[in-house]
Amino acid sequence: MINLRNLERDLELIRQKSPLVHNITNYVVMNNTANALLAIGASPVMAHALDEVGEMAGLASSLVLNIGTLEQSWVEAMIIAGKKATERKIPVIFDPVGAGATSYRTTVCWRILEECRPSVIRGNASEIMALRNAGVQTKGVDSTEASHSALASAKELALQTGVVVVISGETDYITDGKMVETVCNGSRMMAKVTGMGCTATAITGAFAAVNPNMMEASTHAMVIMGIAGEIAAAQSRGNGSLQMNFLDELCNITIDTVSAKLKQTEEL
Amino acid sequence: MINLRNLERDLELIRQKSPLVHNITNYVVMNNTANALLAIGASPVMAHALDEVGEMAGLASSLVLNIGTLEQSWVEAMIIAGKKATERKIPVIFDPVGAGATSYRTTVCWRILEECRPSVIRGNASEIMALRNAGVQTKGVDSTEASHSALASAKELALQTGVVVVISGETDYITDGKMVETVCNGSRMMAKVTGMGCTATAITGAFAAVNPNMMEASTHAMVIMGIAGEIAAAQSRGNGSLQMNFLDELCNITIDTVSAKLKQTEEL
Amino acid sequence: MINLRNLERDLELIRQKSPLVHNITNYVVMNNTANALLAIGASPVMAHALDEVGEMAGLASSLVLNIGTLEQSWVEAMIIAGKKATERKIPVIFDPVGAGATSYRTTVCWRILEECRPSVIRGNASEIMALRNAGVQTKGVDSTEASHSALASAKELALQTGVVVVISGETDYITDGKMVETVCNGSRMMAKVTGMGCTATAITGAFAAVNPNMMEASTHAMVIMGIAGEIAAAQSRGNGSLQMNFLDELCNITIDTVSAKLKQTEEL
Repeated sequence: MINLRNLERDLELIRQKSPLVHNITNYVVMNNTANALLAIGASPVMAHALDEVGEMAGLASSLVLNIGTLEQSWVEAMIIAGKKATERKIPVIFDPVGAGATSYRTTVCWRILEECRPSVIRGNASEIMALRNAGVQTKGVDSTEASHSALASAKELALQTGVVVVISGETDYITDGKMVETVCNGSRMMAKVTGMGCTATAITGAFAAVNPNMMEASTHAMVIMGIAGEIAAAQSRGNGSLQMNFLDELCNITIDTVSAKLKQTEEL
Repeated sequence: MINLRNLERDLELIRQKSPLVHNITNYVVMNNTANALLAIGASPVMAHALDEVGEMAGLASSLVLNIGTLEQSWVEAMIIAGKKATERKIPVIFDPVGAGATSYRTTVCWRILEECRPSVIRGNASEIMALRNAGVQTKGVDSTEASHSALASAKELALQTGVVVVISGETDYITDGKMVETVCNGSRMMAKVTGMGCTATAITGAFAAVNPNMMEASTHAMVIMGIAGEIAAAQSRGNGSLQMNFLDELCNITIDTVSAKLKQTEEL
Repeated sequence: MINLRNLERDLELIRQKSPLVHNITNYVVMNNTANALLAIGASPVMAHALDEVGEMAGLASSLVLNIGTLEQSWVEAMIIAGKKATERKIPVIFDPVGAGATSYRTTVCWRILEECRPSVIRGNASEIMALRNAGVQTKGVDSTEASHSALASAKELALQTGVVVVISGETDYITDGKMVETVCNGSRMMAKVTGMGCTATAITGAFAAVNPNMMEASTHAMVIMGIAGEIAAAQSRGNGSLQMNFLDELCNITIDTVSAKLKQTEEL
């Protein structure tokens, strides 16, 4: 279960140190994930040129790789940045967007897992199952499965790769293959905002930049996402206002709000 | 004139089936068009890598091609995806953004028309006239002409290519070269939000995914765009809030709203 | 000090003529900068293909170059468009995003300065100091220095290159190396919205399109940015609503608002 003092400490560290989070991510969400990182207190940079991506990863406190709109030269940039990050021992957070939708995506995911050695993988149920060859077909970038269906795959993937795996969905699961944390916050409306998953991955990058415990950092990120999303959804008429209110909530979230709203479950 | 029962059926089908709409579109609007597709109930995917674009089009229920920020490799991706879509007989919706502004754009448009055989073309008046070599100069991506000026070009283009042509503007015209439907909803403020036209094209992709009658699907899309935009504009102080309110209205639009607000004209 | 009649004239000219502003800019901000240009009354176009970028710059009233997510082919496009703009004597506004963060960015900046001969450079303090080799390390794309720290570098850079240099920050400084204008409007919250600096550069493109006096055009742009941002921030709970309210304020700003809110300082 979550230690609220540690979560409070991480939030304060992000806001004090404003860690540089280097993102190589997709076109659809760049604006939102940059704003989400600014809202929580981090300093985002988006850079993908082969000529600078290693140097930029050399300055960063964490690296976020997201294949949402991948193509060959971007994948090469991810590999270079990922290797630099691994060499520097800064955390690499990987978002396998659309794994299982096309064979190219699945292949690229495996290449990144092998060459960049991420610290955390965050995906929806279909994506995580696809990475375990669990014979699921991802529908574009949307999950076709409930999050608990992917828990076995997530545990296996975590054990196999030594990575913390996060499945986001109605309940979020965070596992290193042995322990499992859950977060039951959030709102169904969040799935109506494009790139909410990508934003969760970016926010994980902010927490991982200040907390070397990847299970804890990832869980903290999912708690903050879920609670900010839940409060924002309650004020929103549709996905337009939700996208805006979510950023506002991220700006204002405090440990008292988290303490009042946190929902976990032990039932696995 | 519009059959409201058919429009209601299409809206329900989109919300029930959540069809996968594959977009190869421009950087400016990706976030908004993805959110608009989610708002109406569809499932958007943005993918342009040569390595996967055929496979992704192979999963989709419709394909949206938009040249707003085109370049060579993206055009190749559009051709591959377009051919796959034609082969699978799923509808291809084409947005000739900025046709007539540069000779490169006009040339690419003709290549896409010939090689991808779209089902629907949606553009502003200048763009549609440029495709008919009507000697108009598009001002960047904005129209220099009122929508009715392009009606003759639209009809000719439709007859020549067998495509349904949509001119959006103060009055929207939808034609297969013989019949013409009109939609008079909307608000002038919509032209102040970047990519509203691109969003109309994407929404047409959602309707075309569930309705094989392209005249009807395109008209339904323009009705929904116009009415959601009109209601949103009445609540908005500027283009920032209009962009947000428009998405919220798309999320909440019902056949009763459409029935109360619909404005068509028979005067051509 | 600012001549309010000239500012009013520029605002009216932008709204009447709706000048075409050609942007080669970064993925993160394209949507916002296009909307900001529409809000103020200009007509934005984003185009970067080597096949059309010269022709598009040939139609435009000003050109905005922004290296936020640069890569080789985009830099080539900037050079081609920049040369065309210089040949046509339309103003080139340059945003050296992240100069000083990586050596690649700094090198590209110098290439653009030499080959495109911009009329205005707008950056944050770190970026401007980096262009003068002032031994500062930019933190990704965020400044590590207060704006006044860069004033000496800005003046030297302006004298060396013949360019008007704008440092944005809590106080904005606009200098041609001899004169210095200041603008003290704005809000600290603006730094929480990604791409606010890029938007300032784009808005400078709109003013430079209608006013050949680059000192004045740049100062007008910074006044409008600062006042719209300040009013928007006072109504906003976080960076989500600020991004939206800022666009709404740009749509509605009048010379009376400017006159009531303008803050300058003579103390340098």
